[in-house]
Amino acid sequence: MPAYATNMRLKFPIVALILEIITIILFAVFVVYDDGEGHGHDGDHSNSTHHTPQEPMALYPMFQDVHVMIFIGFGFLMTFLKRYGFSSVGVNLLLAAFGLQWGLLMQGVWHLTDGKIKVSIFKIINADFSTATVLISFGAVLGKTSPVQLLIMTIMEITIFSINEHLVANVLGANDIGASMIIHAYGAYFGLAVARMLYRPGLRNGHENDGSVYHSDLFAMIGTVFLWMFWPSFNSAIADPGFTQLTAVINTYLSLAACVLSAYAISSLVEHKGKLDMVHIQNATLAGGVAVGTCADMNIGPFGAMLIGFVAGIISTLGFKYLTPILASNLGIQDTCGVHNLHGMPGILGGLAGIVAVALGKKKNIFFFIQGLIMKLPFWGQPPDQNCFDDSIYWEVPEEEEENEESLAHADHSKNKAEV
Amino acid sequence: MPAYATNMRLKFPIVALILEIITIILFAVFVVYDDGEGHGHDGDHSNSTHHTPQEPMALYPMFQDVHVMIFIGFGFLMTFLKRYGFSSVGVNLLLAAFGLQWGLLMQGVWHLTDGKIKVSIFKIINADFSTATVLISFGAVLGKTSPVQLLIMTIMEITIFSINEHLVANVLGANDIGASMIIHAYGAYFGLAVARMLYRPGLRNGHENDGSVYHSDLFAMIGTVFLWMFWPSFNSAIADPGFTQLTAVINTYLSLAACVLSAYAISSLVEHKGKLDMVHIQNATLAGGVAVGTCADMNIGPFGAMLIGFVAGIISTLGFKYLTPILASNLGIQDTCGVHNLHGMPGILGGLAGIVAVALGKKKNIFFFIQGLIMKLPFWGQPPDQNCFDDSIYWEVPEEEEENEESLAHADHSKNKAEV
Amino acid sequence: MPAYATNMRLKFPIVALILEIITIILFAVFVVYDDGEGHGHDGDHSNSTHHTPQEPMALYPMFQDVHVMIFIGFGFLMTFLKRYGFSSVGVNLLLAAFGLQWGLLMQGVWHLTDGKIKVSIFKIINADFSTATVLISFGAVLGKTSPVQLLIMTIMEITIFSINEHLVANVLGANDIGASMIIHAYGAYFGLAVARMLYRPGLRNGHENDGSVYHSDLFAMIGTVFLWMFWPSFNSAIADPGFTQLTAVINTYLSLAACVLSAYAISSLVEHKGKLDMVHIQNATLAGGVAVGTCADMNIGPFGAMLIGFVAGIISTLGFKYLTPILASNLGIQDTCGVHNLHGMPGILGGLAGIVAVALGKKKNIFFFIQGLIMKLPFWGQPPDQNCFDDSIYWEVPEEEEENEESLAHADHSKNKAEV
Repeated sequence: MPAYATNMRLKFPIVALILEIITIILFAVFVVYDDGEGHGHDGDHSNSTHHTPQEPMALYPMFQDVHVMIFIGFGFLMTFLKRYGFSSVGVNLLLAAFGLQWGLLMQGVWHLTDGKIKVSIFKIINADFSTATVLISFGAVLGKTSPVQLLIMTIMEITIFSINEHLVANVLGANDIGASMIIHAYGAYFGLAVARMLYRPGLRNGHENDGSVYHSDLFAMIGTVFLWMFWPSFNSAIADPGFTQLTAVINTYLSLAACVLSAYAISSLVEHKGKLDMVHIQNATLAGGVAVGTCADMNIGPFGAMLIGFVAGIISTLGFKYLTPILASNLGIQDTCGVHNLHGMPGILGGLAGIVAVALGKKKNIFFFIQGLIMKLPFWGQPPDQNCFDDSIYWEVPEEEEENEESLAHADHSKNKAEV
Repeated sequence: MPAYATNMRLKFPIVALILEIITIILFAVFVVYDDGEGHGHDGDHSNSTHHTPQEPMALYPMFQDVHVMIFIGFGFLMTFLKRYGFSSVGVNLLLAAFGLQWGLLMQGVWHLTDGKIKVSIFKIINADFSTATVLISFGAVLGKTSPVQLLIMTIMEITIFSINEHLVANVLGANDIGASMIIHAYGAYFGLAVARMLYRPGLRNGHENDGSVYHSDLFAMIGTVFLWMFWPSFNSAIADPGFTQLTAVINTYLSLAACVLSAYAISSLVEHKGKLDMVHIQNATLAGGVAVGTCADMNIGPFGAMLIGFVAGIISTLGFKYLTPILASNLGIQDTCGVHNLHGMPGILGGLAGIVAVALGKKKNIFFFIQGLIMKLPFWGQPPDQNCFDDSIYWEVPEEEEENEESLAHADHSKNKAEV
Repeated sequence: MPAYATNMRLKFPIVALILEIITIILFAVFVVYDDGEGHGHDGDHSNSTHHTPQEPMALYPMFQDVHVMIFIGFGFLMTFLKRYGFSSVGVNLLLAAFGLQWGLLMQGVWHLTDGKIKVSIFKIINADFSTATVLISFGAVLGKTSPVQLLIMTIMEITIFSINEHLVANVLGANDIGASMIIHAYGAYFGLAVARMLYRPGLRNGHENDGSVYHSDLFAMIGTVFLWMFWPSFNSAIADPGFTQLTAVINTYLSLAACVLSAYAISSLVEHKGKLDMVHIQNATLAGGVAVGTCADMNIGPFGAMLIGFVAGIISTLGFKYLTPILASNLGIQDTCGVHNLHGMPGILGGLAGIVAVALGKKKNIFFFIQGLIMKLPFWGQPPDQNCFDDSIYWEVPEEEEENEESLAHADHSKNKAEV
């Protein structure tokens, strides 16, 4: 462990500082404020035509809702692990803070105005979206990767995402407003592919830190509930203003509500003595938001949205119960947060309407493969098996824990003494 | 315990799934999106006349504030119990998710347009409001009811609430904008009546889990502070737009601020050695929001609002200190969260202006009585006394706790060994 | 300790009640609702000319973001101490609730309309801002002061702040939109001056409660992340509407993002084995928001904002690592939360552009000195050294802790028994 930990001292600061300096230089060259001029000929999802220059802040409350989902929602959702809370919320902040800068550049490249990327609220919402793909993938490999590996994953995943997004939205003209496919399914399968490449036989029989304690489950519920509440903003933020946006809000709100009922019901049905399982409640209750994403702004009817949420809650809960163990044991995919059940399958469910997504899905597998190979390189400071799921390898952890261990040692000692 | 727990396996999933399926069918028949047409002849609190169809999303930020109060605010406020955090935030999510669907139907029935319920942001704010009544009542019986009982309570309480609300607002034409009476006092006395019917002599001398630990009190403060911050939105969301809405915001903001000072002062005054009591801080600081509700949009003057909050903070704190024990020992009302002090008395204080509320209050008692009888039926999976206030009866709880118990057992064992 | 604690019983309630009653009387005489009339001749930062009376609620979402920063952000940021969470979030609520009332009066005095203070959303945003100075100073003396001392500090600090703010904005006509200097640097140096006056030689070698435990660090991250997310609202809330406001949002958003990377990198670089330190992550990641404050609404270019954030993250992290220990040992300034590193230096960095701030800075030192003397008076109920950083001196703390101590005592007992 010392060898691994020590390596971070140079690797991580150098990588982080260089990435940021390069990013600042690129911003100096390419990025300017949006001044409301020069719009109208880029391919934005109808934003430019609807938001007149007089109201540049109109989307700001929506942006802040999405911002909360990215930083509080994803960050705290992953704090369920007993000894990995610092990394969950802290590395989430790191990846999202870098990812949004990178996303602004990568997405902006397709929408240049006079050779410049003009930053607007619309653009920073999309930048936040691009980080969501990384945070979903982060969930699949949580506890088993180093910050350096994850920064590299961030660059690659967001770059590919921006290309995908451009192809889907602007070249193919496909509609994926809530991004069931291009964010959720993409993020999930990207993460699963990486998890597969990083397969650790040593964790086949689990790891003592790969679980929750009582209060860590409550911290995770902060993430769950903020994601649940603000998902209508996620699915409607970049919809056409007015009644289309309202439709996206209503559909997501109702899909999530129906999803809660089915997730709770199935959780109770499949668990020991009919008890509810916090893993299901923390995750499967959100599947309705993922699944209704693609068609959120369409006229599917309120009950249609509820049906989608209802089914998503069932599929997701069953996935956590039955599929995750199979993926781990048979396919070598150790999906820490079960992103396949929350983002993967519900994302597919949401995107079934479009053949486009399937075609793109195949193309992406090649990228996944290369990505996994790169992350497998032995010099990114990844943790050895015994230190997986443990903050203390990358974070200074308060001494209490060591004290506890010492006091346990003491107890042992007194016991031995007594036995003598 | 096993018998109780096992029963949930069939009861709860079946009830939850059937309720959701019936709800989806009712939505398929009755609910459509609001398209901005057909307004003007329903009885909405002036909404339809002020919000032109061009801005269907105008109330969305207000809605999200209320949403945060319902799901984070109420959910985390109740996590103060040491072993009941999963149920507090988890069952809160379940009841509110079902309640908002049921509320949309029950409230919508009074405002049909061409035989349909048109869902708008205004309507989903009201649906969230309807769930607040249930969550308040939930506080009164927290720790002593099963999820099945609570789902049934949700249906009954929201149905009656919708009738009440219709009578008060549209038939009697009474003003209760922040709903001191029709939400807070109603929710509190409904909950107290249910608590009375479910009186448990076995808990007369308290229960070891009916208390907090250090970190559970901090989780509860998340709920408190979010409720406190967003209460101005709760009391103004459906007020007339413009200066009336501003008045409701200012009154609530100032009432809450004054309430904090009096709640802290009285808490220190009545407690052991002048120390502050977290129960008071978590709850009585919010009484100002409840009490100013009914007259929030009236021209009572900023200092008038502060006076109301000041008095509410005093009454509420004194209630927690002196009234709650009396209710429990003399009237057989075991009010877990003290909703009588936060929602009951401050709600009455807020509604004193109207005789209407009193008249309705009497009528409600009959419903309370029937409700209690139905919930008392022996097959809802309610917990036995010794399992009250304990998540492990309805939730899978991380093993740490059992380990602790085992290690304690071990300690005992080694001690015995030593003594031999 | 009993003597200290008992004294609170009369002192605190009397001070709190009298302050609130005086405040209510002042409100009765001076404060009315804003009715949209009579604007145009006060000196507000251009608010009155841009916000037409027709949209009195336009700034409300911004206000709520700032509100969350004040009550959740500052409150939870300080919960990192293992035994001082109740005080952190609870006293934060008390001081902010009183401070916003006092701030409305003190700030309003400079903008009377027909002899009255007209409360608008703009005014309550500024009132929230005025409390921020107190909460920053609170961080410097956290764990070492009584609620009574802090209420007195609140009155003095906000009164002086309001004079400063008036001089800077209206007399000198200086621009400090995000208030790097007049809020952050002022709050920090005010707090440091108070900390210096309250220097405790007995804490020279630290205190066992002056540190975190695992879960207290996670609670603090709730504060950090909410501050981080909503800082763009803090720096733009009172900017000129439209593209100026957009500029303030974009600059703050980018400065914070760049700051995260440099703070993480330097934290890893300077720490033991390259590990990240939660103190840096909780605080230095926010320095970008402070430092970009003064020029947030200026055309510094997106990369300019990022450069400021990047440098602020480095300075702040280095300050925590190297400067805080020196301040404590050489200058007798025991800065509990390190506000010098988060608000002080980054605030100075942000304000360097203006000579004005420096001139004012000198004047303020006199006030600091008097303030410290007043707070040093022996009758405010301040805690003795051994009870610093411990909630139990001012709060009722759940019994668990005592039980733990008892069980340890038991363990000792059984050990002794065994040895016999």
